[in-house]
Amino acid sequence: MALEQDTGTPRHQRADAARNRQRLLAVAADVLRERGLEASVGEIAERAGVGRATLFRNFPTKQDLITAVVLERIREGVAEGEAMLETGGDQEILFPFMKLLVGRQRVDRALFESVGGEAFLTDERMRQAHAAIIDLIDRLIAHDQRLGYVREGLGAVDMLMLIKGACAVATSMPDLGPQALDRHLSLVRGAIAPPGRDYPLEGTAPTIDDLHARPVSER
Amino acid sequence: MALEQDTGTPRHQRADAARNRQRLLAVAADVLRERGLEASVGEIAERAGVGRATLFRNFPTKQDLITAVVLERIREGVAEGEAMLETGGDQEILFPFMKLLVGRQRVDRALFESVGGEAFLTDERMRQAHAAIIDLIDRLIAHDQRLGYVREGLGAVDMLMLIKGACAVATSMPDLGPQALDRHLSLVRGAIAPPGRDYPLEGTAPTIDDLHARPVSER
Repeated sequence: MALEQDTGTPRHQRADAARNRQRLLAVAADVLRERGLEASVGEIAERAGVGRATLFRNFPTKQDLITAVVLERIREGVAEGEAMLETGGDQEILFPFMKLLVGRQRVDRALFESVGGEAFLTDERMRQAHAAIIDLIDRLIAHDQRLGYVREGLGAVDMLMLIKGACAVATSMPDLGPQALDRHLSLVRGAIAPPGRDYPLEGTAPTIDDLHARPVSER
Repeated sequence: MALEQDTGTPRHQRADAARNRQRLLAVAADVLRERGLEASVGEIAERAGVGRATLFRNFPTKQDLITAVVLERIREGVAEGEAMLETGGDQEILFPFMKLLVGRQRVDRALFESVGGEAFLTDERMRQAHAAIIDLIDRLIAHDQRLGYVREGLGAVDMLMLIKGACAVATSMPDLGPQALDRHLSLVRGAIAPPGRDYPLEGTAPTIDDLHARPVSER
């Protein structure tokens, strides 16, 4: 209530503003995915059905918009991990969560690259988002260790490094396709396996022909 | 002899030319490592002690020079792997070879990125170099499988993907330093382990503080 009086804005107008902001974020994510970082903010405003003034009021620079989209994606990922932990019971969670993140980052590659390492060091909200992921992964590891899915000694930053590596494979070798990524992840799963637990390799080993499958013109 | 008559160039002049070329490649590798891809060809010629004309005769464009340096690095790597295979006896070879390549690519990052995926598809010499690595890794895998160091079903392209992933970790998280890379590689080693063989994790799990160890100004 105090907040409402402070802003001097009627409740329905603030609800509209929040909806506009969420809509802008969702549309921006789509447009950035389709067009890459060259996407124009004009197109984003237009497709979201809001004026440019509204867009700039919410996100003064394009980088602000991109950062907000990435923060939203991270929040969604953390929320999904929390939900898996709540409903997962005795099922393995850490590896499925890793698969989820890698598959998604494959699609949102440019987005995550654009806020790369420096942003995590300089932007306080990014640092907080990073800390939230680390905290979640710590709990996923503890859950899966207790059930014998994951080796002792594994830390959340170890997992982030494995996820980072698999994301690089996913984005740098697009010719290999999603099956090859599943294959690769089934291999990486062995890195987090506890002694005596053997996870099967999925599919067959890719060949050099798979690497050179498509002519450049079709890439 | 026929070749000598064809070129019409005395033997010592051809030996000089070959030496110049090797010297240019070695100096170019150093300068590119120090300055990145922005390095000037003028500086490379000067430090190699040859004229610009000699440089351009050998490498008409800067990209030709960069490609030649990368091909040379790949050839060196393949030669080292061959030597390990010849002298390694019953020792594990595949994982030490992976460590060697990842540690090196950490240093030569920009170089390898500059001839990225497209070059391997379009440049015939790159394709041949790629095929030579694949062939070598196939033999390293067979050697280590026979001795029980490496799991069945693992293919050379599987290994390339693991190497690619570890290289991405090495170059994208420079704050973590070489010990963290050794730790990460000791984890990845579990991915290639055969059932029942447990490789120890090196060091301790890195923390979020390790990720944010240095202020941006010192990076």
